[in-house]
Amino acid sequence: MQLTRYTDYALRTLLQAALMPEGERLSVAQITATYDISRSHVMKIVQRLGQLGYLRNVRGKGGGIELGKAPEEINISAVVIDMESNLQIVECNSPYCRLQPACKLKQVLTEAINAFITVLESYTLADLVENKDELLQLLTLDEIAA
Amino acid sequence: MQLTRYTDYALRTLLQAALMPEGERLSVAQITATYDISRSHVMKIVQRLGQLGYLRNVRGKGGGIELGKAPEEINISAVVIDMESNLQIVECNSPYCRLQPACKLKQVLTEAINAFITVLESYTLADLVENKDELLQLLTLDEIAA
Repeated sequence: MQLTRYTDYALRTLLQAALMPEGERLSVAQITATYDISRSHVMKIVQRLGQLGYLRNVRGKGGGIELGKAPEEINISAVVIDMESNLQIVECNSPYCRLQPACKLKQVLTEAINAFITVLESYTLADLVENKDELLQLLTLDEIAA
Repeated sequence: MQLTRYTDYALRTLLQAALMPEGERLSVAQITATYDISRSHVMKIVQRLGQLGYLRNVRGKGGGIELGKAPEEINISAVVIDMESNLQIVECNSPYCRLQPACKLKQVLTEAINAFITVLESYTLADLVENKDELLQLLTLDEIAA
């Protein structure tokens, strides 16, 4: 059981955007370099995060990607719900399961996934970068090593 | 985010085994017919559930598949943990994520998955078949319609 890579890297992209020093903006190339993923994958993620208002693309000199909202306003559960195409923990309709009308397994799994989401609801992007200096050092160390 | 089909159908197979009337045993054909999945998939699941002691295969006349433990002794979280090859909600090592040593995202997602598991820990297979008559009727109605 995993988040899709799409959601996973959306969260990491937001994390990296939140780590940018004041006034600096992020490039797609920096994201691909940090996480070693393809440019096309990053482009799709950045575009979707932009549509959802989590990121903003600033054009022109000094332009680039920046957060579309304050980190405190970006709730982790909202990002997961927005990015995951499917939060149905099991697939009861394809093929249709004949036990569905009375199935308690589905109820139990739904209760479990709700508990998962409830934990995520209690965190924002700001919580993920409260150790900003430490995270920035990890980014920079790697750049020196590269 | 979904359970693997392997885990999903393992749970459904246990459910069906728990619904068998006293003294009757389940066949692989009955499982494939109920859930409309391939025989090879069911065989793999049944074999693994057997290795784990959740199912027992009784040979000879009147033989077939039966539960290896009482439904009350089969905890849902244990089945999910045993069957899911990967409960790491995100993949931090492939490719290796440079933020990992200080990453709070991983911590938050681990806390969330633990909440998911904690809910499942509070249920056994017996809880899933407490409405046994209703579930049996759904199985039987469908057999008549087939």
